[in-house]
Amino acid sequence: MLYAHPNPNQSKINRHMALAGNALDHVQVRDLYESYPDFHVDAAAEQKSLKEAQVVVFQFPIYWFNAPSIIREWQDTVLSRGFAFGPGGTALQGKRFMLAVTTGGGKPSYAEGQPHGAPIEDYLRTFEQTARFCGMNLLEPFIVQGVGSMTAKDVDDTLEAYKTRLSMIARETS
Amino acid sequence: MLYAHPNPNQSKINRHMALAGNALDHVQVRDLYESYPDFHVDAAAEQKSLKEAQVVVFQFPIYWFNAPSIIREWQDTVLSRGFAFGPGGTALQGKRFMLAVTTGGGKPSYAEGQPHGAPIEDYLRTFEQTARFCGMNLLEPFIVQGVGSMTAKDVDDTLEAYKTRLSMIARETS
Repeated sequence: MLYAHPNPNQSKINRHMALAGNALDHVQVRDLYESYPDFHVDAAAEQKSLKEAQVVVFQFPIYWFNAPSIIREWQDTVLSRGFAFGPGGTALQGKRFMLAVTTGGGKPSYAEGQPHGAPIEDYLRTFEQTARFCGMNLLEPFIVQGVGSMTAKDVDDTLEAYKTRLSMIARETS
Repeated sequence: MLYAHPNPNQSKINRHMALAGNALDHVQVRDLYESYPDFHVDAAAEQKSLKEAQVVVFQFPIYWFNAPSIIREWQDTVLSRGFAFGPGGTALQGKRFMLAVTTGGGKPSYAEGQPHGAPIEDYLRTFEQTARFCGMNLLEPFIVQGVGSMTAKDVDDTLEAYKTRLSMIARETS
């Protein structure tokens, strides 16, 4: 699982989702902002980890309808021709891919004519198409919206749902 | 104009588009990768420049259906609450916004069932919605596709069209 949060100390749920995932036996969380404070993503180490994974999860908070910058840097550095696509680029083929994202704004705001303009799914296409281009099979994204107004119980329930989802995927995959 | 190319030496047209823009009187090009090799975007300097601009152009090559990482970093750093949105965040309201993007693959490949999955416009929504959220008025994007198979004449014609487009926008704006 690739986790990227540029401001983890301000995180209400995303950081806890990463911790919850990390506590599961079959999940390995790679914290990109922690690993690469200088922004120099280690392509070889990331590719080695990807090869060993059966499921690849991108987990991040949505900022400006998109992923944090280090996710983009990771894609450009790690998903190289000959590894992820092009001649001989078959390392990711057949693996499963899931997005796990959070938004501060609630779902009603993500609609035409509303402040966020369109359903969140519309803004996730760049990442889904990247996975597809690399031959991965898409899983339904895990989407949490309205984080800004969540109660402590909402957070707990969501963390439980996330753990259940990750465990289910692990069972289906093994 | 904010220009971002992570590999300018491999650029067939995007870098020349930035040079062509820079040669125009009314255009100021800010080369983000050149200005911020350490990735620490100077929010104050960028905000000052934005305030002076009437038109904001993001120019970049599309990688993985998205913008280069420094464009994302720029958005998160520069478009702060109280500047670009939220209470008092009116600095960009009424300015005009244009995307100028290039893709290696041709337009026919950007369709459902084809390798790039959907029209390029679908992948630009995150940037358009960002501009809209900040109160900017969207201009038609300048899109160049099929750069991989362009002849020298194609490149020249496209550069001319780009200069014409930028000059027209300047005339309309002044």
